Amino acid sequence: MSNTFGNILRLTTFGESHGKAIGGIIDGYPPNIIIDSEFIQSELNKRKPNNSEISTQRKENDKVEILSGIFENKSLGTPIGFIIPNYDIKSTDYKNLKNLYRPGHADFTYQKKYGIRDYRGGGRSSARETANWVVAGAFAKIMIKKYNIQVNAYTKQIGNLKFEKHYTEIDLDKTYSYSTRCPDNEQNKLFEQEILNAKKNQDSVGGIVSCIVKNTPVGIGEPVFDKMQAQLAKAVMSINACKGFEIGQGFNAASLNGSYFNDEIFKENNKILFKSNNSGGVLGGITTGQDIIINAAFKPTSSIEKEQQTIDNQGNNIKFKISGRHDPCVVPRAVIVVESVVAMVIADFILMNNEFSL
Amino acid sequence: MSNTFGNILRLTTFGESHGKAIGGIIDGYPPNIIIDSEFIQSELNKRKPNNSEISTQRKENDKVEILSGIFENKSLGTPIGFIIPNYDIKSTDYKNLKNLYRPGHADFTYQKKYGIRDYRGGGRSSARETANWVVAGAFAKIMIKKYNIQVNAYTKQIGNLKFEKHYTEIDLDKTYSYSTRCPDNEQNKLFEQEILNAKKNQDSVGGIVSCIVKNTPVGIGEPVFDKMQAQLAKAVMSINACKGFEIGQGFNAASLNGSYFNDEIFKENNKILFKSNNSGGVLGGITTGQDIIINAAFKPTSSIEKEQQTIDNQGNNIKFKISGRHDPCVVPRAVIVVESVVAMVIADFILMNNEFSL
Amino acid sequence: MSNTFGNILRLTTFGESHGKAIGGIIDGYPPNIIIDSEFIQSELNKRKPNNSEISTQRKENDKVEILSGIFENKSLGTPIGFIIPNYDIKSTDYKNLKNLYRPGHADFTYQKKYGIRDYRGGGRSSARETANWVVAGAFAKIMIKKYNIQVNAYTKQIGNLKFEKHYTEIDLDKTYSYSTRCPDNEQNKLFEQEILNAKKNQDSVGGIVSCIVKNTPVGIGEPVFDKMQAQLAKAVMSINACKGFEIGQGFNAASLNGSYFNDEIFKENNKILFKSNNSGGVLGGITTGQDIIINAAFKPTSSIEKEQQTIDNQGNNIKFKISGRHDPCVVPRAVIVVESVVAMVIADFILMNNEFSL
Amino acid sequence: MSNTFGNILRLTTFGESHGKAIGGIIDGYPPNIIIDSEFIQSELNKRKPNNSEISTQRKENDKVEILSGIFENKSLGTPIGFIIPNYDIKSTDYKNLKNLYRPGHADFTYQKKYGIRDYRGGGRSSARETANWVVAGAFAKIMIKKYNIQVNAYTKQIGNLKFEKHYTEIDLDKTYSYSTRCPDNEQNKLFEQEILNAKKNQDSVGGIVSCIVKNTPVGIGEPVFDKMQAQLAKAVMSINACKGFEIGQGFNAASLNGSYFNDEIFKENNKILFKSNNSGGVLGGITTGQDIIINAAFKPTSSIEKEQQTIDNQGNNIKFKISGRHDPCVVPRAVIVVESVVAMVIADFILMNNEFSL
Repeated sequence: MSNTFGNILRLTTFGESHGKAIGGIIDGYPPNIIIDSEFIQSELNKRKPNNSEISTQRKENDKVEILSGIFENKSLGTPIGFIIPNYDIKSTDYKNLKNLYRPGHADFTYQKKYGIRDYRGGGRSSARETANWVVAGAFAKIMIKKYNIQVNAYTKQIGNLKFEKHYTEIDLDKTYSYSTRCPDNEQNKLFEQEILNAKKNQDSVGGIVSCIVKNTPVGIGEPVFDKMQAQLAKAVMSINACKGFEIGQGFNAASLNGSYFNDEIFKENNKILFKSNNSGGVLGGITTGQDIIINAAFKPTSSIEKEQQTIDNQGNNIKFKISGRHDPCVVPRAVIVVESVVAMVIADFILMNNEFSL
Repeated sequence: MSNTFGNILRLTTFGESHGKAIGGIIDGYPPNIIIDSEFIQSELNKRKPNNSEISTQRKENDKVEILSGIFENKSLGTPIGFIIPNYDIKSTDYKNLKNLYRPGHADFTYQKKYGIRDYRGGGRSSARETANWVVAGAFAKIMIKKYNIQVNAYTKQIGNLKFEKHYTEIDLDKTYSYSTRCPDNEQNKLFEQEILNAKKNQDSVGGIVSCIVKNTPVGIGEPVFDKMQAQLAKAVMSINACKGFEIGQGFNAASLNGSYFNDEIFKENNKILFKSNNSGGVLGGITTGQDIIINAAFKPTSSIEKEQQTIDNQGNNIKFKISGRHDPCVVPRAVIVVESVVAMVIADFILMNNEFSL
Repeated sequence: MSNTFGNILRLTTFGESHGKAIGGIIDGYPPNIIIDSEFIQSELNKRKPNNSEISTQRKENDKVEILSGIFENKSLGTPIGFIIPNYDIKSTDYKNLKNLYRPGHADFTYQKKYGIRDYRGGGRSSARETANWVVAGAFAKIMIKKYNIQVNAYTKQIGNLKFEKHYTEIDLDKTYSYSTRCPDNEQNKLFEQEILNAKKNQDSVGGIVSCIVKNTPVGIGEPVFDKMQAQLAKAVMSINACKGFEIGQGFNAASLNGSYFNDEIFKENNKILFKSNNSGGVLGGITTGQDIIINAAFKPTSSIEKEQQTIDNQGNNIKFKISGRHDPCVVPRAVIVVESVVAMVIADFILMNNEFSL
Repeated sequence: MSNTFGNILRLTTFGESHGKAIGGIIDGYPPNIIIDSEFIQSELNKRKPNNSEISTQRKENDKVEILSGIFENKSLGTPIGFIIPNYDIKSTDYKNLKNLYRPGHADFTYQKKYGIRDYRGGGRSSARETANWVVAGAFAKIMIKKYNIQVNAYTKQIGNLKFEKHYTEIDLDKTYSYSTRCPDNEQNKLFEQEILNAKKNQDSVGGIVSCIVKNTPVGIGEPVFDKMQAQLAKAVMSINACKGFEIGQGFNAASLNGSYFNDEIFKENNKILFKSNNSGGVLGGITTGQDIIINAAFKPTSSIEKEQQTIDNQGNNIKFKISGRHDPCVVPRAVIVVESVVAMVIADFILMNNEFSL
């Protein structure tokens, strides 16, 4: 359960942040799909800390090695095993954290659940795990591209700053040219400044990622417990630091009337169309064919340089500071992770749907 | 997949709104637990439309019949089969809707996915399905009561009206004495009026349900893909009309700094305590022992009496009105459903956790 | 886990032998298939004790009520809920067995596992449960008939008597015209006599069921852990009293050489053919397109009228006799159960296989 | 599904025989168990071809690298990722087999199912995959040793030669000192000769492996679809070349009477005992506490040097010989694999059983 995601297309992962390697197995991937391994690596590169000041200084190679499931550049239909070795390990950074529970981190809960933990870099609870998800998401993207489906995420809010442009007004293909993953020159600068302010204050800041799925086929999703929105919520809420999920109007729907909210249907030029997209592309857990629109809220990075109060594993109250290498805001690096898990969900639902199976 | 929920404690359901019966099977329920069948029924009664003007006039008996798994008032450890027969069926209400796709409903998507649908009352997509969930939730509540765990939901917002009191200031045991499921005299009246306004305008309105889990054990949940918050999100987002989910500070977390957000830990009188609960009771997907706090956003009821534009199954553009019996706001009846699915998730995680298994 | 079978096409069941009803939910069944409910019932009738002397005198109606998933005689793609009420309940037969553990039955193991059991008629461990499987098998048969696939089982051995004819020499459509489910006049009489001998001696006898799947598509099954033969073995070994499973040459394969065993391949008249079928229709867990041939061994009925030694739940050694209504041989009634679970497995694998999905 | 085995303790694997590596992820393994990595490797060594003439001359290092889940020699409760690199790859052996379907192998069925295959060494269908299972089985053995449970398999039949001694008369701890894995000097020589005879004839031969589980706790297993015997059958029938499975009296049960078969229960010196063990340690799918006794039948190795008839992928009838390095009998190397999958099943059921959870 815990370390597997998906129904037909399933990712199972392993790995502690400072162990030998992290990695995973992608099962259920269809055969005979041409795999461009450079694309897989380029996706993973989007998750790497970039060289700007807004990122951690930890410099991992993050090079994925695919061990099986591909033969002469095509998928075999057999499981795709892969590993991402851990190279730049400075476990010394963590020695002084060995015996204490960092607030906001999973140190305390892992210790209580398992009675043991790999304290180095958060061990299994590290967001480094999401590198595995990006690999799987890259494979999913290759698959769903056969249906012309596109998944694009971008940064929509950092701290109190909101990017107000509608997604149809921006160039979603440019997202990764911008340090904060907001494809708008001016907004990117504002977001960057907001993050630097937090950093300067030895603090961190949260934000919101928006994700759009275009060209979704009509009729995928499941009707009761694995509704499209439920599975997307589960996937996105699995991402480290994610605290909220919404689809379509989301929380805003609470204050709306049905006469406004209902997306009326009409036919024009022999095409079925909707007058609006308040539902965010789903009805009854199944896709309408409109764009899927979701938002994910992220909390501020838990690791901050400011002094904090906590206890050690003997129960002593202590004050401490974190001096490791950390991002002052997780949002820019979370963008590709959101895209990846969403792509995995979409690919999985396509495989669950007879009409759309390859 | 689609019609089963849970890992160890699993609910599988069936039933169309206007078929012979709905029902389900609860598997993995521990043996030797005393089952008070009147409690089960009383929970189900909380979901029934109450007699006030803010509810549908459909009057279902909603009487659950337990068919197996209980012997001499105790659970056997074998699957609990149950049915809820459908009595008050006015399928004639739906005859004129047979050939058209109601906006906001799943008519269009079911037809596209399956090529067939039971159009009467929405068939499988009807929120009537959630009666099954309340039965399962009642069993879960009985089980988790052995750990003294309590799950309480209540209405927090209707339309633009927000109930601002903190949950610790209100009496959560009184929720079901109030028509809108907001346990506050004044606020309940305001919410009732908001719903009646929508009804008067032949319209509907959305809202937000908040849910609190008290006395959660420390250390339940799973660390990667079945994080407590991810599984709760999936459960809650499975509820009909739900468009958003958040835990702890949720979307508000986006605008906060880490120095504020991190819940500092300290020890006092030999107890491990937290200075705040911005995380909402989870760290790294695992419970901290603090209250779990979640919110769920619901869209306005899709069925409204106002004229709407849609197409019929021949693709003709048409105008139509819905004259059936419907709630102008789903939120009051959703409150018990939120409690139920949350109780199921908590019970499931307890069974997944060795330390806490019965 | 325990009460669910299958991957895409999944049966979840409930019910104690002497409770209100047994029943189940069939999930994942494709939409738009015409369902002949009389066929479903006729399959169930094949499992009923027939009126000959070789069967129990318990006379259940065994009437299945389908509660959902079918609309205007077609499958909806939604879960099919069904119940089989328990009518002819003589629980008094079991009062004297309440406190003791019948040898060969699951009384002892259920008590140890759960600390509680419904002692009436074996409760959940009763073979009455297999009536649920026959209902699901009937639905599976309807589905796989679309691929022209046929599943036929028959009695191959009773006690020491073996039916030596090859299955291609007998009329498998006549199986249910014979009391012992062996479609051969002479052999049926011999088998009947063997069973009556056991009965006369207040004893019981075992036997072997053979099952053939014709017109299996090439290429269904899974390659590693859900091999066709592995899933068939699991299904068949789940049947009450089953002690052995084999495919193709089965245990006989142990004494053969590869040069004999290997089924050589050749092409004739543009068709790919095999010179033999020692593998029983599978290679590497995947179907070759040849007939699938399996055998299942059943132990003698555990309930016998002869005096037996056991202990009661206080740990006292006691002697006792079983005077209830029982079959002296389970094999004739197991034949339809074998067919049913095999049909379920085949249908499930077809749905797992993209090429063959409806 | 296909590449994952188990419910709570779950193994997911990957790898083609001649790819970069094979490997897997063990999920659900309990925390705080001391892991002796030399034991893991020593188990894997038992599967290696030994140096005698009865084995293939392929000499793999088969060295397992554990990548995660272990910290300071203890299990973390997080997934255990491992790989076994492929070193001694002579793919040239297979070039001439690239375009033809070897009888008895999965070449034909993989090609038909996937439309593509890694023809080198059978790719994913190679028994090399079972090295992964041995690693997981070794971890399972460490875990169940905490309950004093022991799993011992040995060779019981090769060709027509049967080893007639009862398992209680032999020293099961010596199995791996014997080339054929039959812990009896005389019988081992006879078995060895039988295998060499087959080899001399450019042929292969089958056999039977018996497996005993001692000190099984009472009350583990599941009652309906995941019966102990069903899950064991599935596990064992997943092993390459396995054609039959039986428990207790197995196929022999068919010819027995209930008065003989039923294992009578009695109490002596305050212990619950059984007069016999015809059931093989299970009743109703749940363990009685007696030894679990199973047999598994293996077909003769499919790769033989004799000339065989088959077709190539253009459909031409051809004659060919296999000149690669192969075992003339799979049974000796299958013994540790049987032990491994049985240990995995037992460990999984223990974790599924509340009473026995760590």
